[in-house]
Amino acid sequence: MVLHGPNLGALGLREPEIYGRKTLQEIDEDLQAWARGRGCEIESFQSNWEGALIDRVHQARGQFDGIVINPGALTHYSIALRDALAAVPLPAVEVHLSNVHARESFRHHSVISPVVKGVIAGLGDLGYRLALEALLEACKGGGGREGA
Amino acid sequence: MVLHGPNLGALGLREPEIYGRKTLQEIDEDLQAWARGRGCEIESFQSNWEGALIDRVHQARGQFDGIVINPGALTHYSIALRDALAAVPLPAVEVHLSNVHARESFRHHSVISPVVKGVIAGLGDLGYRLALEALLEACKGGGGREGA
Amino acid sequence: MVLHGPNLGALGLREPEIYGRKTLQEIDEDLQAWARGRGCEIESFQSNWEGALIDRVHQARGQFDGIVINPGALTHYSIALRDALAAVPLPAVEVHLSNVHARESFRHHSVISPVVKGVIAGLGDLGYRLALEALLEACKGGGGREGA
Amino acid sequence: MVLHGPNLGALGLREPEIYGRKTLQEIDEDLQAWARGRGCEIESFQSNWEGALIDRVHQARGQFDGIVINPGALTHYSIALRDALAAVPLPAVEVHLSNVHARESFRHHSVISPVVKGVIAGLGDLGYRLALEALLEACKGGGGREGA
Amino acid sequence: MVLHGPNLGALGLREPEIYGRKTLQEIDEDLQAWARGRGCEIESFQSNWEGALIDRVHQARGQFDGIVINPGALTHYSIALRDALAAVPLPAVEVHLSNVHARESFRHHSVISPVVKGVIAGLGDLGYRLALEALLEACKGGGGREGA
Amino acid sequence: MVLHGPNLGALGLREPEIYGRKTLQEIDEDLQAWARGRGCEIESFQSNWEGALIDRVHQARGQFDGIVINPGALTHYSIALRDALAAVPLPAVEVHLSNVHARESFRHHSVISPVVKGVIAGLGDLGYRLALEALLEACKGGGGREGA
Amino acid sequence: MVLHGPNLGALGLREPEIYGRKTLQEIDEDLQAWARGRGCEIESFQSNWEGALIDRVHQARGQFDGIVINPGALTHYSIALRDALAAVPLPAVEVHLSNVHARESFRHHSVISPVVKGVIAGLGDLGYRLALEALLEACKGGGGREGA
Amino acid sequence: MVLHGPNLGALGLREPEIYGRKTLQEIDEDLQAWARGRGCEIESFQSNWEGALIDRVHQARGQFDGIVINPGALTHYSIALRDALAAVPLPAVEVHLSNVHARESFRHHSVISPVVKGVIAGLGDLGYRLALEALLEACKGGGGREGA
Amino acid sequence: MVLHGPNLGALGLREPEIYGRKTLQEIDEDLQAWARGRGCEIESFQSNWEGALIDRVHQARGQFDGIVINPGALTHYSIALRDALAAVPLPAVEVHLSNVHARESFRHHSVISPVVKGVIAGLGDLGYRLALEALLEACKGGGGREGA
Amino acid sequence: MVLHGPNLGALGLREPEIYGRKTLQEIDEDLQAWARGRGCEIESFQSNWEGALIDRVHQARGQFDGIVINPGALTHYSIALRDALAAVPLPAVEVHLSNVHARESFRHHSVISPVVKGVIAGLGDLGYRLALEALLEACKGGGGREGA
Amino acid sequence: MVLHGPNLGALGLREPEIYGRKTLQEIDEDLQAWARGRGCEIESFQSNWEGALIDRVHQARGQFDGIVINPGALTHYSIALRDALAAVPLPAVEVHLSNVHARESFRHHSVISPVVKGVIAGLGDLGYRLALEALLEACKGGGGREGA
Amino acid sequence: MVLHGPNLGALGLREPEIYGRKTLQEIDEDLQAWARGRGCEIESFQSNWEGALIDRVHQARGQFDGIVINPGALTHYSIALRDALAAVPLPAVEVHLSNVHARESFRHHSVISPVVKGVIAGLGDLGYRLALEALLEACKGGGGREGA
Repeated sequence: MVLHGPNLGALGLREPEIYGRKTLQEIDEDLQAWARGRGCEIESFQSNWEGALIDRVHQARGQFDGIVINPGALTHYSIALRDALAAVPLPAVEVHLSNVHARESFRHHSVISPVVKGVIAGLGDLGYRLALEALLEACKGGGGREGA
Repeated sequence: MVLHGPNLGALGLREPEIYGRKTLQEIDEDLQAWARGRGCEIESFQSNWEGALIDRVHQARGQFDGIVINPGALTHYSIALRDALAAVPLPAVEVHLSNVHARESFRHHSVISPVVKGVIAGLGDLGYRLALEALLEACKGGGGREGA
Repeated sequence: MVLHGPNLGALGLREPEIYGRKTLQEIDEDLQAWARGRGCEIESFQSNWEGALIDRVHQARGQFDGIVINPGALTHYSIALRDALAAVPLPAVEVHLSNVHARESFRHHSVISPVVKGVIAGLGDLGYRLALEALLEACKGGGGREGA
Repeated sequence: MVLHGPNLGALGLREPEIYGRKTLQEIDEDLQAWARGRGCEIESFQSNWEGALIDRVHQARGQFDGIVINPGALTHYSIALRDALAAVPLPAVEVHLSNVHARESFRHHSVISPVVKGVIAGLGDLGYRLALEALLEACKGGGGREGA
Repeated sequence: MVLHGPNLGALGLREPEIYGRKTLQEIDEDLQAWARGRGCEIESFQSNWEGALIDRVHQARGQFDGIVINPGALTHYSIALRDALAAVPLPAVEVHLSNVHARESFRHHSVISPVVKGVIAGLGDLGYRLALEALLEACKGGGGREGA
Repeated sequence: MVLHGPNLGALGLREPEIYGRKTLQEIDEDLQAWARGRGCEIESFQSNWEGALIDRVHQARGQFDGIVINPGALTHYSIALRDALAAVPLPAVEVHLSNVHARESFRHHSVISPVVKGVIAGLGDLGYRLALEALLEACKGGGGREGA
Repeated sequence: MVLHGPNLGALGLREPEIYGRKTLQEIDEDLQAWARGRGCEIESFQSNWEGALIDRVHQARGQFDGIVINPGALTHYSIALRDALAAVPLPAVEVHLSNVHARESFRHHSVISPVVKGVIAGLGDLGYRLALEALLEACKGGGGREGA
Repeated sequence: MVLHGPNLGALGLREPEIYGRKTLQEIDEDLQAWARGRGCEIESFQSNWEGALIDRVHQARGQFDGIVINPGALTHYSIALRDALAAVPLPAVEVHLSNVHARESFRHHSVISPVVKGVIAGLGDLGYRLALEALLEACKGGGGREGA
Repeated sequence: MVLHGPNLGALGLREPEIYGRKTLQEIDEDLQAWARGRGCEIESFQSNWEGALIDRVHQARGQFDGIVINPGALTHYSIALRDALAAVPLPAVEVHLSNVHARESFRHHSVISPVVKGVIAGLGDLGYRLALEALLEACKGGGGREGA
Repeated sequence: MVLHGPNLGALGLREPEIYGRKTLQEIDEDLQAWARGRGCEIESFQSNWEGALIDRVHQARGQFDGIVINPGALTHYSIALRDALAAVPLPAVEVHLSNVHARESFRHHSVISPVVKGVIAGLGDLGYRLALEALLEACKGGGGREGA
Repeated sequence: MVLHGPNLGALGLREPEIYGRKTLQEIDEDLQAWARGRGCEIESFQSNWEGALIDRVHQARGQFDGIVINPGALTHYSIALRDALAAVPLPAVEVHLSNVHARESFRHHSVISPVVKGVIAGLGDLGYRLALEALLEACKGGGGREGA
Repeated sequence: MVLHGPNLGALGLREPEIYGRKTLQEIDEDLQAWARGRGCEIESFQSNWEGALIDRVHQARGQFDGIVINPGALTHYSIALRDALAAVPLPAVEVHLSNVHARESFRHHSVISPVVKGVIAGLGDLGYRLALEALLEACKGGGGREGA
């Protein structure tokens, strides 16, 4: 499962010098194509609503093998989303399009990072694909979050 | 160029429950093999000496197209290494084997991250390979650090 | 009224060594049974959505005599939920299943506590029942929040 | 567009010594009347749901010439709402009914203020009208956020 | 065992708008009566002396099945009392008459809470009775501190 | 009375990209004209001297019905000016030409704000006029600082 | 009543360059003589035990008209002593022999000061006499703590 | 010499529940009378201007035997006034009418205290007289600032 | 003299994985035997009472040649104990059984350390013996605290 | 122009072990002589009044080619002086006689430094001459503040 | 193995009032002699180079039974040295000649302490010998770092 | 002696908008020429290795009369370099090419400044020459670090 947090629906329109010109739909389609090439099915979901994202994380239990999540601004304060990810026994990788460490200081801290397997930041939409690769490797190795 | 910071020479021996059982030499050989498969040449260098790493970063100017760096513990205080990376006009990706955000709080802060293109943490030695992929993509796209 | 915040719907499944093995439904039924034995009617509501919880708090005005609330992770940042509880003239008791003070430091601070009558933490699902007792006592004494 | 954040629906009922006795509906009607007198149309929206407010901000793109927003308690932590306002190229003015600087210290900090054109606090519902005036002036002058 | 910390001997006299008008003796007698009705014997002890309270905690080892403690102002700095409670293998519940979270900020932090089973605050002297109930439940369930 | 703090005498010359190109004299004349149109007389005063501003605040007692003040840099440290405003029983509105919250972090904190009726920031010289409107409204309603 | 906190029994011996060469007994006798000259009786008490000082404060209720207290090192952490002084309806003046503000930074903060009528520091043993004068004035004026 | 800082000229008018009803002139006259009874001449000076107070401190060199100073709000930030007091070899006593430690937290810190002989706070205008007594004692004993 | 602070009387019983299985009596007897072998007499004292420890420190003046002290939890807040050690002109060595720097962060700070000659932590009960050796060396060399 | 802040008029008298024995007049005369030798005219001005210094900075516009300023204690808090220097398009060099970094910690921070070209500290009155040299070089090179 | 960090080579020359007059060579020879008397061989190494010390720590693996280390100034920031000590399964004792807790505040914090068995500070060069004793005891007991 | 810290070897290449276009060799040659003109010999040394710089500082003892040092990024964390400078009895002046106070906040703090005679920042390579002048003056005056 691939989850996109608040404001990511505006990609392509929103501050393209930071987030690039590709729309979220284009990113999701590229990702879907790449995943199918590796015999794996993904489902994408974007919401500006914290509650909707938390519901989806809980629904992933038993239905998916891993979660790629770009929590958007929720990264910095949504302990509820963090607890949802910690409550579900699936490996997760956190992705950020921009290098959050080179931006405002309140973007340097993530409440999500301590409960995921790994973090990829600053590599644009390529980050989503690399995160998928990491989850596929983890599945092949039989490992999960304990590998973090 | 692939740079490994202090104590990474002891990989395989050192706290394997955190850093895995693969030695640094094995990691470098796998990486070399993978890179060659994509028609690209890499050089690896490990040192426990901050000065040696800084020297190498400066030597990379004009000789390499990008830098993959795992600064080890220098991540958290070596402003000198940061300034070296900022001084050299090459895209760089910072890699950590473990998820530093799930460890001691002093490991949550990186003085290096604001000057690199991107950061990958917690994905084991796979992180090095993903970082190489990101640099190759950046080169193909003609982009550099400005894409961060 | 009994309100349960984000992720409490996963009780029994989620980290049982912290939160116990009883599901939320079982907790609510036990509570309902106990309350009826004292001639009092309760309504339970769980949501992963901050907005849904705030709406419910406002709807409680004039309809209920008190609120038992376990805000889950919203405890630590939802000033909006705090303002809703402060805006409604009903006594409220905050409940936590686990002893939040013995966990991560960000769980030690509650933005909710200053506007409720009292707080009960660490006593498992028994905490809900004790909170109900406290509200019943408060009603009998004719008191309200001013007793805090 | 005029946006009202969490708990503002309870105006008139909620702590009137802080927020005054006028209901939100009365405020909106007065505002509508005043705006029409200046040949301008406004639309008001209140929600206790962060996600609903963010959705509305994105929908305003291309449909409105400016945003007046009282984010309520979201002022202090909703970086997601901040990012939405920053993502949409419309001038915005932040309004608070009470003087937040004379209240609890956690109300002194706004994550919203750095991305809006201006801030008006402590002037009761008159603040909304003054904010509208400021947006009208900005439109007449052809200016936008850059004037801030 | 029920332990009362510094200044609790002045209950009824001391700031009754915060602490209520009941004297400590009346509270202890009510508690004793309630406990006997459940076939359990309690002993109460109040002291303004940190050392006396620590001595009592150590003497409780092997003599009592649990500790209800209102540490008074020692809550906020007596690491010695904390260490005593941690050193003795008995479940303990911390009680505060007033809602400490709604008072001065230095009262929001407890050095005791991380080593007890649970905390009850703001429910007046009813808090002591609820704490006893929690300890009785814990004993019946065979549980102890690990349930926290 | 309209008070302008340090460096506001240089308006039009000083960093026009932040403060605009209008001189202080032009602003004062526009304001005077607008006020007269509403049957009210204003007096403007600018000084780079903290003491001169404090003297003026005390002289306003009994002579004026309200104070519009742009304290300039004194906003951030002049507790003496704050105490003067608190000592005089007149409603006051604090005005900033630029959006101080979008500038250096030391400009985010105002020692003046807690003692004034309201604050207007980021709306350029229009802010002065809006502040006058707010004071006129307050006078009509018979209210004063208590409305804040 | 005059209370002396920990280590003040060693006056004259202990670091005389900070605390002077007069012993505590000499100070108490001078004070007694001066007080008698004004028709007032005082009782002095020194202890290294926090509990003993708290007990004395409670015993002062109804027996004395005011308290002069030099809490020694307890100044900086004994919230229990603070609560005792706040619990007893007697005016109190806090005295320090040395100028605590010119010493180590941990001595700059007093947990006692907010609950006493006034504070005198740095004036040597004369401070005790001045504190007595202040209490006598307060009694003559019929005032108490509210004058603070 | 007796120095009064900003806003003390408004005594009697300004917030009398904090500062009392006596005017500054009455305080100075009482002080003058008391001092003359002890054969000593004092001069009083009040200013809202930091610079004027600093000038006076320098003029006191060689002309007076000590300084009583109530720096008003300058207490909390005027390092320039502090340096003036440190530069002049005269004993000084800092006086505050109200108990600054029982007010807003920014009033708890004094930049002046570390360079004066002693501090008296919360004892109303009696504080000035006690400060004079302390300076007279210091002169008699031949001592100066070194006694602090 | 050897002083043991709060909770050290429970050694052997209390958390043996941290503090070891030897009782305090066994430790004191071993120490006594070792000291006699070097022609020196020691006296041991344990108390859970801060006041009792302070009294003993003052009594050591003139009676002993040095102090070995394990302040237990008082290490972290008892400024009164610190002042006692500073007031007595004897060399002192602070001992901790466990490595306090590897435990909770509040155990990393000692208010005692700045006034003792040296500190030994983490070496179990051997630490007491090494501290005695250090004091014996200091006496032989005629040195004292100034050697620190 | 050479500006001297508060208390610098007392040079030679004031704490000569920190500030040296030369009077300000001697320093200014030496500087004048040296400057004339390089065909450049300087004007010196000292004031204990923040407002007077700010006025002078504004008057320097168009009249001088650069500013040498020793802001004295205003260095640490006068944002108004900082804003004056930033408002005037002249290169400025900040000078301190003593090494402020080796003194009290509140002297380590300068609010002035970020808006000047350079800073010289700890070199006594030689610092003024070196600052003049730097301004002369800057003028020769045609450069200004942008060179910083 | 005995490791000495930066600047320890200058012992005897460097600030002898802090570090004593013995040279490092003399200290090492005394230590060697003492060790031989106990049938144990030691090797000493001093370097001003962080990298050299880290290399040596890794080389000690399998070659030595324990490490005595005085990290000098690296104590306070070299996380790389810390990680080296943590990576090697040998008991280590950290030694400081001076009492670092009685010096500048930045010397109170050690990044090394949490990963060593124990710490000895302030006992001069005797500290090295006591550290050796502790390691010998640990070896005899068969214990290692786990005893800490 | 003139010491240049890490990354200064890349001058002219590295971020010329901050550091200028002159290479380090050109700077050193200019400096050498100027020094010779004043009959004084200098030696320059650049290294990216903290250890090499510390070694050189120790070697300067007895060989040079003063040290000009630009510690580069080591300014902000190398306590080892600070201790080396403090250990050697030579006057030193710290130089920075850019105005570090106008850059990132971590560059505002220098661990080196408290142990040198003076600091010059923001004046480009002219700063080195001014530092030499200051050392020459100090030598002529016979003074040293004590003049700071």
